[in-house]
Amino acid sequence: MTDKPSIHRPRIPGGHWQNVDLLAYKQVGSAPFRDVTRQVLFDDPALGCELRYFEVAAGGHSTLERHEHVHAVMILRGHGRCLVGEEVFAVAEQDLIHIPGMTWHQFRAAEDAALGFLCMVNSTRDRPRLPSEEDLALLRRQPDVAYFIRT
Amino acid sequence: MTDKPSIHRPRIPGGHWQNVDLLAYKQVGSAPFRDVTRQVLFDDPALGCELRYFEVAAGGHSTLERHEHVHAVMILRGHGRCLVGEEVFAVAEQDLIHIPGMTWHQFRAAEDAALGFLCMVNSTRDRPRLPSEEDLALLRRQPDVAYFIRT
Repeated sequence: MTDKPSIHRPRIPGGHWQNVDLLAYKQVGSAPFRDVTRQVLFDDPALGCELRYFEVAAGGHSTLERHEHVHAVMILRGHGRCLVGEEVFAVAEQDLIHIPGMTWHQFRAAEDAALGFLCMVNSTRDRPRLPSEEDLALLRRQPDVAYFIRT
Repeated sequence: MTDKPSIHRPRIPGGHWQNVDLLAYKQVGSAPFRDVTRQVLFDDPALGCELRYFEVAAGGHSTLERHEHVHAVMILRGHGRCLVGEEVFAVAEQDLIHIPGMTWHQFRAAEDAALGFLCMVNSTRDRPRLPSEEDLALLRRQPDVAYFIRT
């Protein structure tokens, strides 16, 4: 994106848009994740928020993390599951997910389909924090959560 | 929406969501428009932005207006056309539209399909302004714009 964004950026089939760069989700090795891409759809400083699109390939997952800032998510493509706090939700196209501050969260695509989602977030935000061994032990008390965060 | 939003609000077929109210677009008579509904998907004050969903029924249109604040739009459903400044764009599902501040804009659904779109906007924003007769005369200099804003 540039300082002066294009007015109309048509969708390109397959989860892409004209004049939107396909980015790495994170630096490899900085945190655990598998097969995730990132695209910044809107980042006009006048808004104070950004709208990003993340796509998790079939069988992939985002990082298990938490932070002070909030996420406002809409599933755009495919289906899968997400962990928010100590609850696991099955999610499908156009479902809304609100991730409060300092709440553990992770997205997993289904084994047979990608999971693409929009994520609205403050432009200025704190860095994500990874779970300690103690945090993981607490999360693993619930069998469904233990299975969800297995890798 | 409440002060403490639900974590997971599944989509309900037909452009609705669990625990999201279907609202009037504007007060009838306050501005010209036809067959538009509004739903507030996310309005957590921590974000400083809101994500709204507007749906224009087939043949309907939003208000021709402008304001200081910016709109970040993604088409979610159907197709139609939109005016941004002095340009008319054909828009379809998942297209991105950036509406800069103080730029005339209007959305029109196709005659045979609704047009549903997400709109990200600052929580604190100025009120929309309607065009004067002089503004309309300037817009009507271009035949395609004159046709677009015909009613």
